[in-house]
Amino acid sequence: MPAPAHPSPPPADLLPHHDGSPLHVSDDAPALGERVRVRLRVPEGFGPLEAVMVRSNPDREPTWDEAEPLGAAGGWQWWEAEVTVHNPRHGYRWLLRGAGRVHWLNQSGLHPGEVRDADDFVLLATPAAPAWLAESVMYQIFPDRFARSAEAADREAPEWAIPAAWEDPVAPVMPCRSQQLYGGDLDGIVEKLDHLAELGVDLIYLTPIFPAASNHRYDAASFERVDPLLGGDEAYVRLVRAAHARGMRVIGDLTSNHSGDRHEWFQTALADPGAPERQYYYFAEDGSYESWLGTPSLPKFDWSSEQLRERFIQGTDSVVARWLLPPFEADGWRIDVANMTGRLRDVDLNAEVRQILRRTMEKVNPDTVLLAESTNDATEDLQGDAWHGAMTYPAFTRPLWSWLSDPTGEPWTTAEGSQRTEPWFFGLPLGGIPKITAAEFAQAVTRFSAGIPWRIRLGNMQPLNTHDTARFSTHAAEGAMPLALGLAMTLPGVPVLFAGDEFGLTGADGELSRTPMPWGTESQPEVAERLRLCRELVGLRRGHEVLARGGMRWVHADDDAVVFLRESSQESLLVLATMAEREVELPVVAVPGLAASGGQRDEPAVSRLTGESVCGLSGETMRISALGPSFTVWRLPGVPAPR
Amino acid sequence: MPAPAHPSPPPADLLPHHDGSPLHVSDDAPALGERVRVRLRVPEGFGPLEAVMVRSNPDREPTWDEAEPLGAAGGWQWWEAEVTVHNPRHGYRWLLRGAGRVHWLNQSGLHPGEVRDADDFVLLATPAAPAWLAESVMYQIFPDRFARSAEAADREAPEWAIPAAWEDPVAPVMPCRSQQLYGGDLDGIVEKLDHLAELGVDLIYLTPIFPAASNHRYDAASFERVDPLLGGDEAYVRLVRAAHARGMRVIGDLTSNHSGDRHEWFQTALADPGAPERQYYYFAEDGSYESWLGTPSLPKFDWSSEQLRERFIQGTDSVVARWLLPPFEADGWRIDVANMTGRLRDVDLNAEVRQILRRTMEKVNPDTVLLAESTNDATEDLQGDAWHGAMTYPAFTRPLWSWLSDPTGEPWTTAEGSQRTEPWFFGLPLGGIPKITAAEFAQAVTRFSAGIPWRIRLGNMQPLNTHDTARFSTHAAEGAMPLALGLAMTLPGVPVLFAGDEFGLTGADGELSRTPMPWGTESQPEVAERLRLCRELVGLRRGHEVLARGGMRWVHADDDAVVFLRESSQESLLVLATMAEREVELPVVAVPGLAASGGQRDEPAVSRLTGESVCGLSGETMRISALGPSFTVWRLPGVPAPR
Repeated sequence: MPAPAHPSPPPADLLPHHDGSPLHVSDDAPALGERVRVRLRVPEGFGPLEAVMVRSNPDREPTWDEAEPLGAAGGWQWWEAEVTVHNPRHGYRWLLRGAGRVHWLNQSGLHPGEVRDADDFVLLATPAAPAWLAESVMYQIFPDRFARSAEAADREAPEWAIPAAWEDPVAPVMPCRSQQLYGGDLDGIVEKLDHLAELGVDLIYLTPIFPAASNHRYDAASFERVDPLLGGDEAYVRLVRAAHARGMRVIGDLTSNHSGDRHEWFQTALADPGAPERQYYYFAEDGSYESWLGTPSLPKFDWSSEQLRERFIQGTDSVVARWLLPPFEADGWRIDVANMTGRLRDVDLNAEVRQILRRTMEKVNPDTVLLAESTNDATEDLQGDAWHGAMTYPAFTRPLWSWLSDPTGEPWTTAEGSQRTEPWFFGLPLGGIPKITAAEFAQAVTRFSAGIPWRIRLGNMQPLNTHDTARFSTHAAEGAMPLALGLAMTLPGVPVLFAGDEFGLTGADGELSRTPMPWGTESQPEVAERLRLCRELVGLRRGHEVLARGGMRWVHADDDAVVFLRESSQESLLVLATMAEREVELPVVAVPGLAASGGQRDEPAVSRLTGESVCGLSGETMRISALGPSFTVWRLPGVPAPR
Repeated sequence: MPAPAHPSPPPADLLPHHDGSPLHVSDDAPALGERVRVRLRVPEGFGPLEAVMVRSNPDREPTWDEAEPLGAAGGWQWWEAEVTVHNPRHGYRWLLRGAGRVHWLNQSGLHPGEVRDADDFVLLATPAAPAWLAESVMYQIFPDRFARSAEAADREAPEWAIPAAWEDPVAPVMPCRSQQLYGGDLDGIVEKLDHLAELGVDLIYLTPIFPAASNHRYDAASFERVDPLLGGDEAYVRLVRAAHARGMRVIGDLTSNHSGDRHEWFQTALADPGAPERQYYYFAEDGSYESWLGTPSLPKFDWSSEQLRERFIQGTDSVVARWLLPPFEADGWRIDVANMTGRLRDVDLNAEVRQILRRTMEKVNPDTVLLAESTNDATEDLQGDAWHGAMTYPAFTRPLWSWLSDPTGEPWTTAEGSQRTEPWFFGLPLGGIPKITAAEFAQAVTRFSAGIPWRIRLGNMQPLNTHDTARFSTHAAEGAMPLALGLAMTLPGVPVLFAGDEFGLTGADGELSRTPMPWGTESQPEVAERLRLCRELVGLRRGHEVLARGGMRWVHADDDAVVFLRESSQESLLVLATMAEREVELPVVAVPGLAASGGQRDEPAVSRLTGESVCGLSGETMRISALGPSFTVWRLPGVPAPR
């Protein structure tokens, strides 16, 4: 008999619900002054409500809009209010009054007491990301390690490099770890686009491609040309065109916090203290300068320099613009170290820099995306004024690891050359990977998403791992991989595969994970199974628009399992991720489309899309049974709404 | 037998602790770049720790400082780390590792999972408020209603006013409610300073004293002179000098969001669209203009005007400076509608305005204070760059009402003239006063304080009510008044009495609470008892520095009672506030000074300062018994620390 489930907060199957999705918000990219209709739905059983109101906070002084009851559908009572969008970031929350009780509903959930403003729902009267961002499945490529074209063999390694054969192990210890050059190039990527197409991904994110003195190229020597080692500008044009021809997009990676010390601007600044480039950096009287975390090869930009702004980020002649314009026509930027950009001690120009940067992109091509690297709590900077989303770990990646890892460590070698058995965990000194339950995973996702406007949340990157982290596979618990990949594809946000994830690559830290792609192993049974899993889940994601911008509602969480719904008026996807044998019972009204369908409660109403579990209806109860590590998605009717 | 207590989170008697007080932070006003020692203490019984670290977030990228164990004292293990203050607002939090568990400690408490940055502890490398702010007990005076000097009778009422006799009831309905003029004046206040001195308060906050066309004077017609109806500039000089002579300070009230429509600047702007004053306000093409919540008599300032800045807030010739300089020498400002100031739709100049304003004050006289009106969630603006604190309600006043009211309503008349029985509750449409438990009160205090740096929290105003609210007395539960006043005096923050609180005045809303002072009733038994209570509690506050800047630690909370400690190395005050008969047992180690005192666990170690309850020690257990509504404070030994 399956073990009984132990529900625990915050998930619950019958709570009032609102989110930023089209079911609940009439316009998620309104103009300032526009009236937007927002809807709340309250399930039968919550108890009668006397009044429902929306609290806005225009110019930081609360105002109230009364909601009208719209009627019931599928066992839920709907309420609607009209809100006038007053500020570019217009926060609001719901007040529910009934039977002597008061409840507040915000992005962190339902609260009996007064709540702070930070977790308000948010309407953004700022330019939205292109619609395609939320619909994409991203594939991250670290160019040196992806694929070598025939021409790559002919290129001479630069003086800083330690050439490596494709089969060589990755060097763990500095400085070799950043000098080891495998020689992957952009035409190598072009040759492998079939692989990406079969996988189903459609947004390629390339880590830097500018000339540099390292294999990662985050120490750019110029922003004006593509590294000849990668094939130069022409190869980049070929890659973007070939990708576009297949319906894929390509974004680049730009270091707005620093350049390399070999950068032409920095070299000019060094050579001539009177040069305007001297003002691009933070030089002290004694010639020392600020750099990224004290790394001299990465001098930090001083964004108070107007000339730096004009040259780098502002206007159609800037670096930022150049690579989005013909002949290159890239589809956007991921900004490296966005969190530190423009920030130093008592200076904080971050908001200015990111806004100027995005305005330039909007002028050049508004159909481009802008993503920030902000790997910890990103809520402060993600309020809709520039970044469309972030590469951030605490809202998905870290809690996923904590739930789904089995951290029995293998020895590995750190960048400093010491041996460790304790697994790497995002550079946090936690003594390994802290273990949390499935319910705590759900709480963490909610906690780190609650401060981020819905529209921005949909643009947040959702990787299992990146080039800066160990590979999740290294420590994945047995049977956890379908859950991990499945959650990346079904929770709100942009799923990301780091090249090699689909081969089951491992890697003990952010360097050791940069293994060259094991081309030719595709038919090995384990690889084939992993490829099949990835293709199925990517296909699931891309085949259901509700996964891109549908609503999101937790309906169950316990120590080992979570169940949630992605919802639109067209369809609902019910997602189960469980590490243990489990039987979960939900009232049928938890799925309003089923509740509304009345008699038709047989198999066609509940079709399994992926996974092995069973979902059945008996009377007013919906029963989900799973045998053990399982990720299953069922398709159910969409959410019925009055009018 | 007293009912057993039902402890509930978040309060707990034996949790690791840190706050911004001198026990835990070596310097609460460091310079940028300074190294500050921060200390954590962990009680016996929490379990062994392998490592304790401090996570800082310089330029928004986490760094770690390892804490060293300092040894134990009073049953607590102490840890210390050195943190280099990197940004003007330097957030930090503690990481505790032990026995396979990880805990994070921030201002909202102890968390098993990763937490967001907003509730970090904070070191502020910005100018601090004068030390006297946190030591003060504030007394708010609404000049028209406080006292009339002999000269007041001779003054002719202006054309807008409806003269009232001192005994007349307050007119509830607009427009009379703002026109009714009782004729209190500044020399009337001077004549009553004995009363304030006996009460023990030492910081007078005067609502506006500039000429206006209303009894509240928030519609200033000038910022250049004191209203002749109040006695003019000379009377203000007399008042400030008389107050200073008694060791009291005086702060004024300034409307930075708007002026009155009779203001000389606005009149010039109206008369001459070409005048520079036209740019001080938001005029549209058709001559209409922005105003406070759509009230035409309160035109809103446009802070993009450089001339407005110079005239009003910037430099020694500005309005802000003028009233702090001789001959006036006021001790600071409370800024009206600070939350909306400089904010309109897509413009937000609030940070600029408040910072310029404070810089002017620092230049003129740094020994002055600056407080913001920000009556809802004030965390966004209270990060230490300008405001020393705020008049804000959700961190104390509103949860206090919700716990300690008995909201059986008397009919009252609203500003619009309608009759209501449902009690007024801060303008929130909650259907009256929502009821919460004592534990929920503690949670609300924590929730709305957790985002505010400790130093700023100490400057936050802690009123039971103000001129903008109903009087707490109107709905106070039987026996609740000692708890309410006691909590205002003992929780971190600046206690505030609104003139008349000490007479037990009532008032159903923010207008009806502006009753003229009932001078001459002091010997009536109920008034005498209230006066005695106020004097005792103000005396308690001012007699114990630990209440101004000592640490703060909840040790118990249940449905009806809270127990907390204010702590320094000199003394600990144990505070009990309970509405019901209660027996609370705490391990003696909860009070480290007692635990350290070993054998001396008799009466002298625990001396009652106020109230009727009993606190006794038996073995390792401390037992607090109370018979019913009770507020009691005991003095205990200070907190022993290693080294």
